[in-house]
Amino acid sequence: MTEDRLQAKAGPDPVPEGLLKPGERVDELLRNGYRIIQDPARFCFGMDAVLLSGFAAEGIRSGAKVLDLGTGTGIIPLLLRGKTRASRLTGLEIQPESADMAARSVALNGLEDSVSIIQGDLKEAGSLFPAASFDAVTCNPPYMIGRHGLLNEQGPKAIARHEILCTFEDVASQTAKVLAPGGSFFLVHRPFRLAEIMGVLMKYRLEPKRMRLVYPFWDREPNMVLLQAVRGGNPRLKVERPLVIYREPGVYTEEIREIYGY
Amino acid sequence: MTEDRLQAKAGPDPVPEGLLKPGERVDELLRNGYRIIQDPARFCFGMDAVLLSGFAAEGIRSGAKVLDLGTGTGIIPLLLRGKTRASRLTGLEIQPESADMAARSVALNGLEDSVSIIQGDLKEAGSLFPAASFDAVTCNPPYMIGRHGLLNEQGPKAIARHEILCTFEDVASQTAKVLAPGGSFFLVHRPFRLAEIMGVLMKYRLEPKRMRLVYPFWDREPNMVLLQAVRGGNPRLKVERPLVIYREPGVYTEEIREIYGY
Repeated sequence: MTEDRLQAKAGPDPVPEGLLKPGERVDELLRNGYRIIQDPARFCFGMDAVLLSGFAAEGIRSGAKVLDLGTGTGIIPLLLRGKTRASRLTGLEIQPESADMAARSVALNGLEDSVSIIQGDLKEAGSLFPAASFDAVTCNPPYMIGRHGLLNEQGPKAIARHEILCTFEDVASQTAKVLAPGGSFFLVHRPFRLAEIMGVLMKYRLEPKRMRLVYPFWDREPNMVLLQAVRGGNPRLKVERPLVIYREPGVYTEEIREIYGY
Repeated sequence: MTEDRLQAKAGPDPVPEGLLKPGERVDELLRNGYRIIQDPARFCFGMDAVLLSGFAAEGIRSGAKVLDLGTGTGIIPLLLRGKTRASRLTGLEIQPESADMAARSVALNGLEDSVSIIQGDLKEAGSLFPAASFDAVTCNPPYMIGRHGLLNEQGPKAIARHEILCTFEDVASQTAKVLAPGGSFFLVHRPFRLAEIMGVLMKYRLEPKRMRLVYPFWDREPNMVLLQAVRGGNPRLKVERPLVIYREPGVYTEEIREIYGY
């Protein structure tokens, strides 16, 4: 989801010469003055990434080590760096161009000491990282099953939206390997896949413990679901109050404004 | 949940002499003039039964044969008789006193031709009824796991609320036997068990297809979940808009008033 409105162009702070490649731009994150490099022709982060970072931040403890699977341009580690006291944030991204942009954004914000970007396949996370080495894992995975209707299967938008390079089961199985027992997996997905997602999570002993549905308006169908699953947790799900995006057409609710940092 | 407010005492229509046993009363159902016999010392139906009947009615076709598992005093078959064009409604109830009250309510409303009450154990539904013989199954099961804190494990309130005589897995496994392929299972439950419930449904090939969360207020946590699962259905869940109970404290929303029939 591209939400250009929400990505304010960078202000007067100078961007180091040579940092940007053709087509790239720098957007403000409204959080600690952080900025992110994006290329609108490739992919810009959407509201789902922002809501996931807000949801996850409530459950990430001080000193935690956090892994973001399929980090893209690094939006989630950057936002979590601003919203939590995590000691170390790692983003894993398969597409070299995206991983490179993420690493340059980390440098742009001077966060090299606490945020790392690694180029690699999340399907190999279990061998890239030691077992049970993270306190929390986040993921904003592709939502769509299959490739139907896709003209360009290799494009970054297609890879971000469709299960081309990984399935949800890949995400869950790798998460279960690298997450410490009692650690939390935070994800955002589409409600239409909720039953399947819960089934896959439970298959890998990632017990759904907290869920929040995101409704565009309070009287409409939800279009996103936020989930927290605990590795080895006992069955008991807390379904939270609705997260409503618009108070009226074009006007965000107070909670959405707070999550964005307005 | 007892909701005495919502159960108007019967008006001037005479109740046949000898119909009521000591402690019993007759309540109006605000639907086709139907009435129900209840004993407040045993159990009175709650909002969950009313919301389940409204949710199920949207998915029950004309001419359908419907089974209600654990029917209690028969509230769900009576409401579905008023809200759908089902051809035959059967209520199965293990407690002889409740089954007897349900049968007398059927007679009180003159519905013997289309509503049957059978006294028996839902854990044996698969042998009491032919395989795949119902187009829809409904159930308002006990919500609570175990018996912790219960003083009287045999009381009808305890049996209705706690998994003493059956578990949710019993309900799902028997439903899968008596439901026709493509037929729907409608249930109401507590959100805290949602992940487990979805897992059990999928285990028995009852695919969750439609879900609605019930919120007391639009900005509070939900306290009920309504689910429709289809035997042998393909994975794809429709999460509906919130069902909100109160517009403001003490004032029902228009939708709740419509479901009740005010």
